[in-house]
Amino acid sequence: MRVTIKDVAKKSGFSITSVSLVLNNKETKIPESSRQLILSTAEELGYRPNRLAVGLLKKKTKLLGLVIPDNSNMFFSELSKSVEIAARKRGYSLIYGNTSDVYSRDYEYLKLFVDHQVDGIVITKSSHLPEKEDIRNLEFLQKNNVPFVVVDRQPKGFHSDMVTVNNTTGGYMATKYLIECGHRKIGCFTGPLGLTTSQQRLDGYKKALEEFNIRYDENLVVEGNFSSGFEDKAMSVFLNKKVTAVFCQNDIMAFGIYRAANKSGIKIPSQLSVIGYDNINLCDIVYPGLTTIHQPIDQIGEESVRILTKLIENSNQKIEAEVKELEPKLVIRNSIISIVEGE
Amino acid sequence: MRVTIKDVAKKSGFSITSVSLVLNNKETKIPESSRQLILSTAEELGYRPNRLAVGLLKKKTKLLGLVIPDNSNMFFSELSKSVEIAARKRGYSLIYGNTSDVYSRDYEYLKLFVDHQVDGIVITKSSHLPEKEDIRNLEFLQKNNVPFVVVDRQPKGFHSDMVTVNNTTGGYMATKYLIECGHRKIGCFTGPLGLTTSQQRLDGYKKALEEFNIRYDENLVVEGNFSSGFEDKAMSVFLNKKVTAVFCQNDIMAFGIYRAANKSGIKIPSQLSVIGYDNINLCDIVYPGLTTIHQPIDQIGEESVRILTKLIENSNQKIEAEVKELEPKLVIRNSIISIVEGE
Repeated sequence: MRVTIKDVAKKSGFSITSVSLVLNNKETKIPESSRQLILSTAEELGYRPNRLAVGLLKKKTKLLGLVIPDNSNMFFSELSKSVEIAARKRGYSLIYGNTSDVYSRDYEYLKLFVDHQVDGIVITKSSHLPEKEDIRNLEFLQKNNVPFVVVDRQPKGFHSDMVTVNNTTGGYMATKYLIECGHRKIGCFTGPLGLTTSQQRLDGYKKALEEFNIRYDENLVVEGNFSSGFEDKAMSVFLNKKVTAVFCQNDIMAFGIYRAANKSGIKIPSQLSVIGYDNINLCDIVYPGLTTIHQPIDQIGEESVRILTKLIENSNQKIEAEVKELEPKLVIRNSIISIVEGE
Repeated sequence: MRVTIKDVAKKSGFSITSVSLVLNNKETKIPESSRQLILSTAEELGYRPNRLAVGLLKKKTKLLGLVIPDNSNMFFSELSKSVEIAARKRGYSLIYGNTSDVYSRDYEYLKLFVDHQVDGIVITKSSHLPEKEDIRNLEFLQKNNVPFVVVDRQPKGFHSDMVTVNNTTGGYMATKYLIECGHRKIGCFTGPLGLTTSQQRLDGYKKALEEFNIRYDENLVVEGNFSSGFEDKAMSVFLNKKVTAVFCQNDIMAFGIYRAANKSGIKIPSQLSVIGYDNINLCDIVYPGLTTIHQPIDQIGEESVRILTKLIENSNQKIEAEVKELEPKLVIRNSIISIVEGE
């Protein structure tokens, strides 16, 4: 049995009523010395309030749910850390649902979170979640009046509170930088093309090519999975097409290209330039350091929890959905060679 | 407001009593067709049971707490994923407490978990948690009768359920392999020496040296932090002492040595052999692939949740503490050169 108010009363010699008043921070005429004695007895016994009862009464649990595709992908593990830090700052704890990118689990977790009466939910959906299920999931939350914020991956045809980083700008920046370094044949190693994230980064790639009058060649685009496993296939396409540089739509896939290059005896950057996306901690650790597009992960966590708690605290009002778009930025390391002079 | 039994009754046209019986899976004489109609109406409306009320009644929340030092360290992000998968398999959800290795947060999270009435807790403490606070924390859980399992990092002077991997064996394996490859001057880049984990891996290092009649030289041991930041200092010591190989007590620190080597123009493995510890996903991605000691992370998650749920389900009985020690194993990649022939 957990330590109860009764135990604290018994040990301290005060009445249950007095102890209850003090421990619940209620107004009371109990002298300060007695109050201190009750508090120290509670501390000593390890007494903690019953949040379940409080939650039932106040209809607030101070729990948030987080759906993420894969906690062993560093972008998402850093993201879940940043969401949790932002939640803690505001007195919320986090129940955490790692779908392992199996999309049926998105709905399972949302149901579970509703069962646990979370006050709100932060969602980054699975990569291959069909549009129809995506909308069904979000409507399920609306029916149960659970506030939610969609992060990073946008639902198509559904307007909701959202935090995202401008992916088109990011893809544009990456490609433009490669072009400015003299590259003309640039491969694009994308995430799953069913995700808006990947499509928008690809749009940015096309936009930069267009701006510099370079013809878009769909044969230079290889679809990946934001994880590893497709790098060898991609590498053979890129070598075959004689690209001098590759824009990888996330860092993990860029590291895959590093590995594939090592296998084929291709040197980065002298024989192949590579740019990534995300700027996870490891970009600094690999050799050569990976030039990449920085996503402000801490800010994503902070903004999503800020918006979510705003929704929770104003749940009786109709507030217009807030879409927060953050800006990416280019981080230059050593994985790109300038061929402007050489050609 | 969330969808209630009342809403389902109203929409389906059945009485609240009938709906309640069906939705709570109680014995009832209601015909199957009506039962189906009630269930489909509940599904359509997005009805979910109130777990908070159920939890208060049954004194079970089906929530577990997890304390980990740093979710952006891949060992811990993979560990939290494996704990979560094992928990879900058994119908439990996970509240997740990332201490960012700030040790005062260990206690904060434990209190929070007790407040949320979690059914049990998995704990990997912060690196620098003082012994006294470590014991105070665990005693706090005992006072509140919250079952817990300690993972990876052992509390000194406290006997509890625990899952660990044999660190002495791991340190021994790593060092023995380097010696068998002909290395005699072997640096040791340790984790925080206040942790039993680091001490035991160091013991294994000493044991292997002793077995091969190599004198232990404390000047070849550099203390790190299981993260990055100390690699340059360590590298300068190792170069100064002319070691030919380094045993790094985790992979992240080995990647730090990779980076420091790159900076100093030292080639791995031809000029310096490196072995890591953990076998996180990245070992395969870096170049050269990192030879390392594999920790069975999935098994750690599985075993800790197995023991924890056993404790939860038998909470009215006194069960002897179970200590599960798993075995590490050597994974050979390309970061070590054999100098047996050359010397």
